[in-house]
Amino acid sequence: MNAMNHVAAAVASLDYDRLLVAMTNACRVTGKRNTLPILDHVTITASRGGAQVCGTDLDRYFTTFVPGQVDKGFACILDAHKLLAVLKKAKAARTVNLSVDGDQVVMSIGKLNVTTTPTASIDDVPQQKFREGLKKSNCSFILKAEVLARILQRVTFAVSTEETRYYLNGTFMHVVQRAGYTFDPKTGDPSNTHLPKLTFAATDGHRLARYEIDVPAGAEAMPDEGVIIPRIATDELSRLLKRKGCPAEIMVTVTDTGISFLIGEDELLESKLIEGTFPDYTRVLPSGNDHRLEIMPSLLIEAVTQASTILTERGRAVRLKLGDGWLRASCKDPEFGTTEMTIAAENETPLEIGFNVGYLLEVLARVEGKAVIKFADCGAPVLVSDTDDDCVLYCLMPMRV
Amino acid sequence: MNAMNHVAAAVASLDYDRLLVAMTNACRVTGKRNTLPILDHVTITASRGGAQVCGTDLDRYFTTFVPGQVDKGFACILDAHKLLAVLKKAKAARTVNLSVDGDQVVMSIGKLNVTTTPTASIDDVPQQKFREGLKKSNCSFILKAEVLARILQRVTFAVSTEETRYYLNGTFMHVVQRAGYTFDPKTGDPSNTHLPKLTFAATDGHRLARYEIDVPAGAEAMPDEGVIIPRIATDELSRLLKRKGCPAEIMVTVTDTGISFLIGEDELLESKLIEGTFPDYTRVLPSGNDHRLEIMPSLLIEAVTQASTILTERGRAVRLKLGDGWLRASCKDPEFGTTEMTIAAENETPLEIGFNVGYLLEVLARVEGKAVIKFADCGAPVLVSDTDDDCVLYCLMPMRV
Repeated sequence: MNAMNHVAAAVASLDYDRLLVAMTNACRVTGKRNTLPILDHVTITASRGGAQVCGTDLDRYFTTFVPGQVDKGFACILDAHKLLAVLKKAKAARTVNLSVDGDQVVMSIGKLNVTTTPTASIDDVPQQKFREGLKKSNCSFILKAEVLARILQRVTFAVSTEETRYYLNGTFMHVVQRAGYTFDPKTGDPSNTHLPKLTFAATDGHRLARYEIDVPAGAEAMPDEGVIIPRIATDELSRLLKRKGCPAEIMVTVTDTGISFLIGEDELLESKLIEGTFPDYTRVLPSGNDHRLEIMPSLLIEAVTQASTILTERGRAVRLKLGDGWLRASCKDPEFGTTEMTIAAENETPLEIGFNVGYLLEVLARVEGKAVIKFADCGAPVLVSDTDDDCVLYCLMPMRV
Repeated sequence: MNAMNHVAAAVASLDYDRLLVAMTNACRVTGKRNTLPILDHVTITASRGGAQVCGTDLDRYFTTFVPGQVDKGFACILDAHKLLAVLKKAKAARTVNLSVDGDQVVMSIGKLNVTTTPTASIDDVPQQKFREGLKKSNCSFILKAEVLARILQRVTFAVSTEETRYYLNGTFMHVVQRAGYTFDPKTGDPSNTHLPKLTFAATDGHRLARYEIDVPAGAEAMPDEGVIIPRIATDELSRLLKRKGCPAEIMVTVTDTGISFLIGEDELLESKLIEGTFPDYTRVLPSGNDHRLEIMPSLLIEAVTQASTILTERGRAVRLKLGDGWLRASCKDPEFGTTEMTIAAENETPLEIGFNVGYLLEVLARVEGKAVIKFADCGAPVLVSDTDDDCVLYCLMPMRV
């Protein structure tokens, strides 16, 4: 009954660094203080060569493979956040020894021994149907991690947080046909055709972001109506893709109820999709915006940021006044006063238009080259594109000021 | 009426970097969303050579001198946090031009113009009596900034946050007589005498910290009953002393109602003292603790930190078991299980004793050399001293485990 005696009987010896990553992944998905206590736990399934560590919040499952020596297969569940806290502190360790004896689990990490008797049973962990569907999916394709990271960085900020229109609470992914040309292989003559594009879009009704890439092999089998990937899944995915040393390729698998992202060979993030129909957002994209302003985003960001500091958190509006060769950003706080900042801008036609400060800055911060801003008038949606990335398009609704 | 027209009539042109520091100081003291709206403001009093920028929460006043060119003296008040936010964003600026015209204040910072009409009047700023007393005090002395910083770092953590015993909500500073020797200048014979010490002490009833230095010139005039410096004043002072490039000398001025710290020549922090009597803490310091353990604090910190990670926030206790040549730290969480970590320790007599994890770690983290821990038994207060700093003494109450 002495915890020390179990160390000799340890049935799994896992790599410390990899287990720490696996636990971090699992804990990010489980969240804290769940209504269902079982969700506060991770499942560890050890078999020859290592262990699968899995956490879930029922909408997402994150499974990571951790290499190690396993004498005899077993499965157990453990308090996710306590185990992660213990692991984080024991940073000098190389391996973690895990031994299971009936209900009791003993971990040895360096000089530290941890003895725990989980209150929940592994049989209580709920299983979701969408995971079964993903195993049989015929729609799988590979994206480079850096491409996927860029797409998410450009698009997901526009996802709505309003719960009533739940179908806007995610990133819409679908295959669309764009007008284009193909060339006759014999004569070289061009003929009109449609080029399919894999398109990602998000909107909350105030702003919209769209990113289009060529359809990767395998993605043609995507459900025709497209899929809506929940924000909590893309947020987690973005974090993973940004890590140093993230594997270079991501295999995406899609069904009409679920999506999974296999990151390298060891990390699998699975998520339910949002049920519902994404609105036909192409109808709000204006086509006749003839007033064109090309500007370095950093200059406009500076003017808007400085002018808007006096504003309180909510309903923050900035007024942009365009004159002959200049642009003035100004803000007003009824209790405090006014600010204004004037910068040079290659512009001729006068215009005055207001924007939500945050929405405007979020778009500008994503532009790498020059920002090309296309206006119609002070009440019409504005288009923003990036001279360094022609895959992306933003649309912003103006604010009355 | 155009704000731009006022720029030419600016009556103060202040150094940007120094104004930013002054505003940061003032805003740290004012706090946010005060019940008295006037306290959300700073007063700026400009006269030849620069301006005094002052913020207050009625218990503390922070005044900073900002050099600049002033054409004509004036005083105004401004929304402290908005002004600070504006200043922070305009970081490329060298100077800030300030012009006052009736109720309206116009600031120009680089390309940014800010126009504000303060809703409060400078005559509404409340004045406190203790500030008058400080001007006439006969008790002033100089401390090196690094010495004062060290004293505060060693002592203020033990200040109580319990509001019922308000007299423990601060650091007690007093002059005490310690037994010592003087030597006859002619014969060289020693004779018993009392050496006065300037002593700083704080306690919350669970732990105590005391720091003693030789009495600096001028401090003998300290009120006999000592003074209690509120935590909010020492917290602010600690932050100031830790800054890079903090002036080397601090002039401390004391009365029986207030204390001020002149930092270099330009920064003055004034604070009310806590009214009340600090308890005779020397009575709780044990004298017969014969069981002595000398240990590298980092080793004990590691064992206690690792063992205690499974504990939830409140009532966190660690049990230390001392054996022949070893020390074992162990913790228990009823829902999760147990942890233990054993390290080498130069010890012979067995002992088991419990501590609040946070209290023990806070003391150990402050020990620079080896920690000398003196025990009596598992129910008696423990003394901790530092082989590298004989000015400091800590006392910890044990916990039943």
